[in-house]
Amino acid sequence: MDRNVGFIGLGTMGMPMVRNLMKAGFTVTVYNRTVAKAERMAKDGARKAASPKEVAAANAVIVTCVSDTPDVESVVLGPEGIVEGIKADSVVIDMSTISPDATRRIADRLRGKGCHMLDAPVSGGEQGAIDATLSIMVGGEATVLERCRPVLEAMGKTIVHVGPNGMGQTVKLMNQVLVAGNLNAAVEALMFARKQGVDLVKAIDAIKGGAAGSWQFTNLAPRMVKRDFHPGFKVGLMQKDLKLVMEAARATGTPLPGTSLVHQMFSSLDTATEGESGTQALVKALERLAGTEIG
Amino acid sequence: MDRNVGFIGLGTMGMPMVRNLMKAGFTVTVYNRTVAKAERMAKDGARKAASPKEVAAANAVIVTCVSDTPDVESVVLGPEGIVEGIKADSVVIDMSTISPDATRRIADRLRGKGCHMLDAPVSGGEQGAIDATLSIMVGGEATVLERCRPVLEAMGKTIVHVGPNGMGQTVKLMNQVLVAGNLNAAVEALMFARKQGVDLVKAIDAIKGGAAGSWQFTNLAPRMVKRDFHPGFKVGLMQKDLKLVMEAARATGTPLPGTSLVHQMFSSLDTATEGESGTQALVKALERLAGTEIG
Amino acid sequence: MDRNVGFIGLGTMGMPMVRNLMKAGFTVTVYNRTVAKAERMAKDGARKAASPKEVAAANAVIVTCVSDTPDVESVVLGPEGIVEGIKADSVVIDMSTISPDATRRIADRLRGKGCHMLDAPVSGGEQGAIDATLSIMVGGEATVLERCRPVLEAMGKTIVHVGPNGMGQTVKLMNQVLVAGNLNAAVEALMFARKQGVDLVKAIDAIKGGAAGSWQFTNLAPRMVKRDFHPGFKVGLMQKDLKLVMEAARATGTPLPGTSLVHQMFSSLDTATEGESGTQALVKALERLAGTEIG
Amino acid sequence: MDRNVGFIGLGTMGMPMVRNLMKAGFTVTVYNRTVAKAERMAKDGARKAASPKEVAAANAVIVTCVSDTPDVESVVLGPEGIVEGIKADSVVIDMSTISPDATRRIADRLRGKGCHMLDAPVSGGEQGAIDATLSIMVGGEATVLERCRPVLEAMGKTIVHVGPNGMGQTVKLMNQVLVAGNLNAAVEALMFARKQGVDLVKAIDAIKGGAAGSWQFTNLAPRMVKRDFHPGFKVGLMQKDLKLVMEAARATGTPLPGTSLVHQMFSSLDTATEGESGTQALVKALERLAGTEIG
Repeated sequence: MDRNVGFIGLGTMGMPMVRNLMKAGFTVTVYNRTVAKAERMAKDGARKAASPKEVAAANAVIVTCVSDTPDVESVVLGPEGIVEGIKADSVVIDMSTISPDATRRIADRLRGKGCHMLDAPVSGGEQGAIDATLSIMVGGEATVLERCRPVLEAMGKTIVHVGPNGMGQTVKLMNQVLVAGNLNAAVEALMFARKQGVDLVKAIDAIKGGAAGSWQFTNLAPRMVKRDFHPGFKVGLMQKDLKLVMEAARATGTPLPGTSLVHQMFSSLDTATEGESGTQALVKALERLAGTEIG
Repeated sequence: MDRNVGFIGLGTMGMPMVRNLMKAGFTVTVYNRTVAKAERMAKDGARKAASPKEVAAANAVIVTCVSDTPDVESVVLGPEGIVEGIKADSVVIDMSTISPDATRRIADRLRGKGCHMLDAPVSGGEQGAIDATLSIMVGGEATVLERCRPVLEAMGKTIVHVGPNGMGQTVKLMNQVLVAGNLNAAVEALMFARKQGVDLVKAIDAIKGGAAGSWQFTNLAPRMVKRDFHPGFKVGLMQKDLKLVMEAARATGTPLPGTSLVHQMFSSLDTATEGESGTQALVKALERLAGTEIG
Repeated sequence: MDRNVGFIGLGTMGMPMVRNLMKAGFTVTVYNRTVAKAERMAKDGARKAASPKEVAAANAVIVTCVSDTPDVESVVLGPEGIVEGIKADSVVIDMSTISPDATRRIADRLRGKGCHMLDAPVSGGEQGAIDATLSIMVGGEATVLERCRPVLEAMGKTIVHVGPNGMGQTVKLMNQVLVAGNLNAAVEALMFARKQGVDLVKAIDAIKGGAAGSWQFTNLAPRMVKRDFHPGFKVGLMQKDLKLVMEAARATGTPLPGTSLVHQMFSSLDTATEGESGTQALVKALERLAGTEIG
Repeated sequence: MDRNVGFIGLGTMGMPMVRNLMKAGFTVTVYNRTVAKAERMAKDGARKAASPKEVAAANAVIVTCVSDTPDVESVVLGPEGIVEGIKADSVVIDMSTISPDATRRIADRLRGKGCHMLDAPVSGGEQGAIDATLSIMVGGEATVLERCRPVLEAMGKTIVHVGPNGMGQTVKLMNQVLVAGNLNAAVEALMFARKQGVDLVKAIDAIKGGAAGSWQFTNLAPRMVKRDFHPGFKVGLMQKDLKLVMEAARATGTPLPGTSLVHQMFSSLDTATEGESGTQALVKALERLAGTEIG
């Protein structure tokens, strides 16, 4: 394949992902709504484009990594969007976490242009983006994935093809059901123990290696105890992801009482002032309800 | 220390634990309400006693491993119970999972006899009992724990002192809050994915190693998909443990909305007919609500 | 005011509402997507129009009574929609239950045409529509409401002005939070009692008049016991209304753990096959979970 | 029947109930743990007894109206308790709200003495006790109820026989499931509306008479808005009643996800400092979670 890649969306995740692509030898053309970030990447060696359309015109593989469904729709289908510049047989790789349904609609639109789409949301957070150790869940055609594999391998460690378009997003949302549930279990376990007078540091250590263990508990429970709310993964994004989960569940008539409850607990966190905290700030919701801080 | 140990309660856990004690060179005197089990252990080399009182009269360290709070109360404090036979300075090690409050009351009674108690509930299930790899959370005095460490090391791999009497049980209940929450997250994630048409085996594999990962998901999600409900840890015991959690939480005014919900989902499982299934049978509760089987 | 009214949407509610308007002496021009219903009303004395645009062209007051947000958007703003035919200073009275946000956007569009909007969702069900005893919660300008009061009084008994545009819908959604919560309480009370062997008919009678009483319990609990699932208010509409509630709550960061749970219980009901049942069918969700029918 | 009645328990409810009995012409012998209250009633014309045993020795009908299961057990079965003084064929009427199971056990003990029991918990609160308008749900034998009817009619307005011993308590708990659920719906409806900027007083008025209506909403929502937390029915008692509900539900394997959630929300209220508030203080739990006061 040719070594040119377009990249739209230079947020917390996008920026280190672009750096890893360049490190792997790709020439990257970037676009970002806030121009300053594109300029910073240009200093580091990227080419700058004035619009998604321009990115698409110059690259046969275009990565999008933005916030939510409307952002992807706007970047791909909007005025000066990718579809206006894209050449036949090009591939759009959407690495945002968005609605599986919208993904299928966007993929249809691209197919109508003789192009392809991969939905390729990631797990692993900012650290995984920096270390190029992201897990990437890919929906789309297997042959298209094979063609783009070098691009994905520059950014992630585990690349799994999970089905046709939309399935990458669906598996990502499934992932978030687990993350949210395990996180809430960690919060409740700590609060339970705190109110009983348990030494939390000792207790976390005693049980994290056994049947109670989870990535969330091992990594975030100690931060909750220290009241370290620096993000790995941000509250505002988890609120958005849980919205996507509940919408997809409703569309298929799937009762998710536990996930729905965690979603409501996350509503206790104010997106404006707490949205940039790490998801471990969920402990604050239960602390408010319980009238007790755990740490 | 002398190499004699008393052991009361020869259930799924107790039996292999006694075998491991004997393997480690202890002479074990056993008692069990159902005599047949004690006879089976006698054939394997254990001594048989006619009552907890008799066990206590013959051993300075007595392990109890029975089902619930009333069982421990009866075995320790009831007629022909341990307190009737116990010699000064002996230790009762209760490895059941019971109420922290009741544990403190029983410890007080034993102290009144010049004796000691350790609450030492375990995690790791039948397999951990067989392999002597149990995690043991110990409440009680550190010096008493040191004296009994060889006994515990014959049965478990990780022995952690977490505080005074009752704290072993409290940390075990904290452990169960995590187990229940992570398990329910696994159930909801699978149902969500199933209703979206995801290939579950592929998806479990794709995400279990990352931020969504947990012991429960890794070990029990594949069994749910295969509808293998053979126990590791039994539904009936988890129902009992969650009852203990909710009682302890209520006593301290601790809201646990998520755990409480999982407790209610477990109420969908009929203790009489489903109580011996493994806890992964929790998936059946959501399947009933959703009208769809995941596997 | 002149005695001409346009009416779009001849469903379970719309049809008897039109009849009541005609009974009150209004000349009603109707439009319905399914033409057969419009023809039936034409036989009863209504005028038929070929599109919402045509309805708007012929009437200064146009009532819409359709299913969901997209239906109102399409009828008002779509091709051949109301805005294409509407004359300056006309009023659109939307009696559907839809998104408060969308309501405000539609009202803005109408204002741009020199026209007015009232959001006027109703409570009282099919029976209330037939008897002209609906409660109508009105959002919009007070002077516009006064102008349209005769129209509303032909259809309802209690007409309350609750604020500017969107507020009628918001208060209706608030109403549905209560309906859903009270309904679920009725379901759980009956299941609790049934599993304890209570004579449900006797018990309903004993407690419905006191502090436990609610419209939902008095009217729907006896039907649940008799397994009479004939609608008053339909499952499919309640599912839609709860979706609107949860969306509006999310937009304002409002945790609603109880409502969210009832929403999930309603997800147990299959819209395709159970959506036309009355909301008392919610009891089936808990029956599935409990493995026991109450009646 | 003779006009002598014993009465044990002179709390918020018991005191006005005794006054109503005296007003109806009964000679009442009272006992209360805190002597001062018994002395106050003595000034008003009651006879004082030194123990439940003494009350029982002097009366063929003995009413108990205390706090919780252990209190009734102690008053009836404890040292100096009713069973020590009771004469054959006497009746104990327990008007406390306690465990149905414990009720059946106590009734058995009384039967063993040749005596009878009625479980006769009430609904209607302090005001109902003062006005003699309580609703009384009676479990026990119909002939025993007929014999005691004049006593009950002196205190309540609606006396319903709902089944054998324990059933009075069970129907009372069913009543509390409704009270709790309707109350929480009121709380969530107000919070939803408040966050949307609704005029709450106007909205309560607009919807309380319709399908959303309930005793709880009509009577307590206005108090919530005014932040009037003066009790009708106290938080501490509701916490106790919900504990009884959840225990009875667990014993019969009944999932009650909604009630369980409200129970957890009530755990946010501190029994020590908020237990004497009226149950409408439940709104504070959601206010803490939402970070917003409704009034």
